[in-house]
Amino acid sequence: MKSVSNSKRVFSVAPIGVIHSPFKRMKDCPFQGARTATVGEIVLKERFLPALKDLDGVSHLYLLTFMHSANRKRLQTVTPYGPEIRGTFATRSPHRPNPIGLTVVELLKIDGCRLRVRGVDCLDGTPVIDIKPYNPYIDAFPRAVVGWYEKVKGKGERKIDRSVSKLVK
Amino acid sequence: MKSVSNSKRVFSVAPIGVIHSPFKRMKDCPFQGARTATVGEIVLKERFLPALKDLDGVSHLYLLTFMHSANRKRLQTVTPYGPEIRGTFATRSPHRPNPIGLTVVELLKIDGCRLRVRGVDCLDGTPVIDIKPYNPYIDAFPRAVVGWYEKVKGKGERKIDRSVSKLVK
Repeated sequence: MKSVSNSKRVFSVAPIGVIHSPFKRMKDCPFQGARTATVGEIVLKERFLPALKDLDGVSHLYLLTFMHSANRKRLQTVTPYGPEIRGTFATRSPHRPNPIGLTVVELLKIDGCRLRVRGVDCLDGTPVIDIKPYNPYIDAFPRAVVGWYEKVKGKGERKIDRSVSKLVK
Repeated sequence: MKSVSNSKRVFSVAPIGVIHSPFKRMKDCPFQGARTATVGEIVLKERFLPALKDLDGVSHLYLLTFMHSANRKRLQTVTPYGPEIRGTFATRSPHRPNPIGLTVVELLKIDGCRLRVRGVDCLDGTPVIDIKPYNPYIDAFPRAVVGWYEKVKGKGERKIDRSVSKLVK
């Protein structure tokens, strides 16, 4: 069956560039980029310049990164919102089987292959694997709900409890 | 420099499952999933069951796929909205250096490792590489603008002009 063979293949991703940010250590990174005003710079490889045509006029981008320092075996995790153990796929934890980071950033300036963006949450030097225009007609769902998050968001963020972390699968 | 070495590394992604959809050929796929009501089923590998904890109560998911049939050398493309040649990174074309598909889908039902979702635009059997909860607090930007799209969206979609396709870089 085609679908089975596809699910057994391993694919490669090659960085198209890196992101420069003020965050030098994992613990410095904010939990969600879009809630910060942190400015960073995406530096793409020169050969991708033709792929940036028409990017002027795009206000927001999906920034896809490869979080190369992640633990890829983590199936459950503890979030900054409480001691509960959550399923990895119900969270945005960087520690996941394929640690692809997804952040919506605001595009501020294009200078050749350098893109100045706001809303960065990545470690400095994180490999960038794709950028896509954010199109509100297909990407904005203001009434979407994340059930567990709705219950805890009022509690505010706190440091992840490492003693609980040890219990996750 | 750490950032340079990161940008030269190649990373691997291993499918966590596949998506089943009614679209058997590339040309059957709609241009954007979120604008369709097409229902499909994500079938994850059994070992990822613990990672699905807390997914009930999540209304919308980011579905990340690997579009394994894509042309990864394509830096410019022709969209369904007109004859103009656009930079790949300013479009959602599947043909891009790292062909990671990103679609917001509505989660309808969870049955073990099978997730019934609405808003599918993928080819049947496409490898799924990640799912993430869509959180409107960080993901919904209703006022975002894609400049070139705003100018052409009224024209409606049409078949891609393959004669123009030949001219792209």
